Amino acid sequence: MEKIIPLKKKAFEEKGFDGFLITNEANMLYFAGFPGAACLLFPRDGENMLYVYGVNYEQAKAEGKSFCVELVKRDENLMAKIADQVKAFGIKNLAFDALTFENYRGLAKGLRGKAKLKQQGKLVWELRKVKDSKELELMRRAGELTCEGMKTAYEVIKPGIREYEVAAEIEYAMRRKGSWGTAFDTIVASGVRSAYPHGGCTDREIREGDLVVVDIGASYRHYRSDMTRTLVAGKPTEKQKKLYEIVKTAQNKGVQSLKAKTKAREVDTAARKIIEEAGYSANFVHSLGHGIGLEVHEPPALSQQSKDRLTAGNVVTIEPGIYIVGFGGIRIEDTVAVKEQGIEKFTDGFYTIEIGK
Amino acid sequence: MEKIIPLKKKAFEEKGFDGFLITNEANMLYFAGFPGAACLLFPRDGENMLYVYGVNYEQAKAEGKSFCVELVKRDENLMAKIADQVKAFGIKNLAFDALTFENYRGLAKGLRGKAKLKQQGKLVWELRKVKDSKELELMRRAGELTCEGMKTAYEVIKPGIREYEVAAEIEYAMRRKGSWGTAFDTIVASGVRSAYPHGGCTDREIREGDLVVVDIGASYRHYRSDMTRTLVAGKPTEKQKKLYEIVKTAQNKGVQSLKAKTKAREVDTAARKIIEEAGYSANFVHSLGHGIGLEVHEPPALSQQSKDRLTAGNVVTIEPGIYIVGFGGIRIEDTVAVKEQGIEKFTDGFYTIEIGK
Repeated sequence: MEKIIPLKKKAFEEKGFDGFLITNEANMLYFAGFPGAACLLFPRDGENMLYVYGVNYEQAKAEGKSFCVELVKRDENLMAKIADQVKAFGIKNLAFDALTFENYRGLAKGLRGKAKLKQQGKLVWELRKVKDSKELELMRRAGELTCEGMKTAYEVIKPGIREYEVAAEIEYAMRRKGSWGTAFDTIVASGVRSAYPHGGCTDREIREGDLVVVDIGASYRHYRSDMTRTLVAGKPTEKQKKLYEIVKTAQNKGVQSLKAKTKAREVDTAARKIIEEAGYSANFVHSLGHGIGLEVHEPPALSQQSKDRLTAGNVVTIEPGIYIVGFGGIRIEDTVAVKEQGIEKFTDGFYTIEIGK
Repeated sequence: MEKIIPLKKKAFEEKGFDGFLITNEANMLYFAGFPGAACLLFPRDGENMLYVYGVNYEQAKAEGKSFCVELVKRDENLMAKIADQVKAFGIKNLAFDALTFENYRGLAKGLRGKAKLKQQGKLVWELRKVKDSKELELMRRAGELTCEGMKTAYEVIKPGIREYEVAAEIEYAMRRKGSWGTAFDTIVASGVRSAYPHGGCTDREIREGDLVVVDIGASYRHYRSDMTRTLVAGKPTEKQKKLYEIVKTAQNKGVQSLKAKTKAREVDTAARKIIEEAGYSANFVHSLGHGIGLEVHEPPALSQQSKDRLTAGNVVTIEPGIYIVGFGGIRIEDTVAVKEQGIEKFTDGFYTIEIGK
């Protein structure tokens, strides 16, 4: 409930809407506090509705005590049902977070012009971007669990082990400590495959001297974490060490530049400049970082296109990289929270390209 | 490429379209054979286009040899770019699989009436529903890996272990054997929580006599599997055993009823009848099963609302359940392929409520 009140305030008092429909899965989780809803409808005047199919009905009734929980039967059309309820509430200006083209059409058809429809996804993001102390606590825990996984990566990676075997050990370590699952598909990308930022994890056998990019995240009570380290299976070459130092310096610079009231774009610029000055600007093929929370990629983006200004409660990744096709890639990433004063790293440590250190 | 030709035949020759836009993630994976594209555009007259952001560009160029790979810059509007290409190809009737309301509006705006837009998601599903021999081979492997996980569940579940600890062991077993990750969030729901079909997995300690629903899936090269078993941590009561036998009989009936040319609805009816006759129709709160492949829930549905008729190459789950709030739940599920003659179970075994058997 405490999450719905600020949305209603913004949408109804400041923007003049009199109803808000939520259909995005992560948004539903944010406002309801548990997964499995089909959609949520918040009227200005009336009880907050949670629509749910039979398979999740009993769970929703047990966990969704602050909602009017409405069963959606398998043969009912959800958008037609919502349209009827919108009319019953007397809603005239309905905001929504997101709709598929099909659902938009279905809803508009059901409303028959009785209510105006307007997308207001950004209003929800304004709230989700700023994590409260409870959310920060869950993300801190997710970060600790992720560090446990990274510790294991540095222990098990050696020539002869396969990428998926490394993933098995990392995920097992995180799970045993209490992770609710992986925040995204684990990346263990070795050798020339490390040059692909989203290289995934295959049955490739890691060889002596390979660069290995390990990009992992635990989740805890639906909140996620994200951490990357790069190491060499064996003794790193001078070139590997040199590139590693550039990325490490850029990552440090990014973390140092992160603070409340700074423009997100400027944090990207600060770290990017280090890589540019070293002559690798064309090899840093993505933005510096992204917001993270219930989803692994959220606003605010730390990129040249970002219009965000950072505030306390933002949680973002700082993840510069250099990728050279045929040679390999290096990325270093942490999940970091912006505080009123300074920052807090939710992931930390293991800043070395060498195993056994 | 071999997947694109039948789509073009259906959409262009039979339906009169002259372009097809693919934006759904699993559909892109299906047609491109690898993940990471931003969208795909197939013209009737011209080269198949794969749009990709910089972060995945090199990987797409290496893996997408049959496409014209087009880089989307961070400051470009993807839908405006697609609209320009649609006009350049001279496409007049553009089919699309799925679009968000926002992207539909952006695309329509960019096209300025030069091409008609029509959703044709079902055309893609007609193809994806029928797995070819290569897909069946990957799903067979995913099923084998899932059975390894279930074997572990029967080995480790005992009073005193926590739900997430069981999940850790199951996922580790699947991963070590070669799983690419979990097909969905692992469910280990014990005690009264087992009455929630999507009960997830918490830090609850499993107690003597608890029902435990274990619903797991491995994925292999992006193809998924899905399997549920229910067991008792300790000696089952007469009531637990009686309910288990009803569900097992219903599951058997469902598997036996599954064959090419049968209506999907009739398979649901056959299994549902067993549970109804035993007096638990109100406790079987979901449909009998669902298609599975690149996504864990796909057409064809095995439900009372389904209009599908089964064909060789369909892969579905058969998963009846009885859920009693305050008592617990029992579900038994397998992933099964429909063949020209008969069926093939991709998951099998462990049909017992008792551990240590």
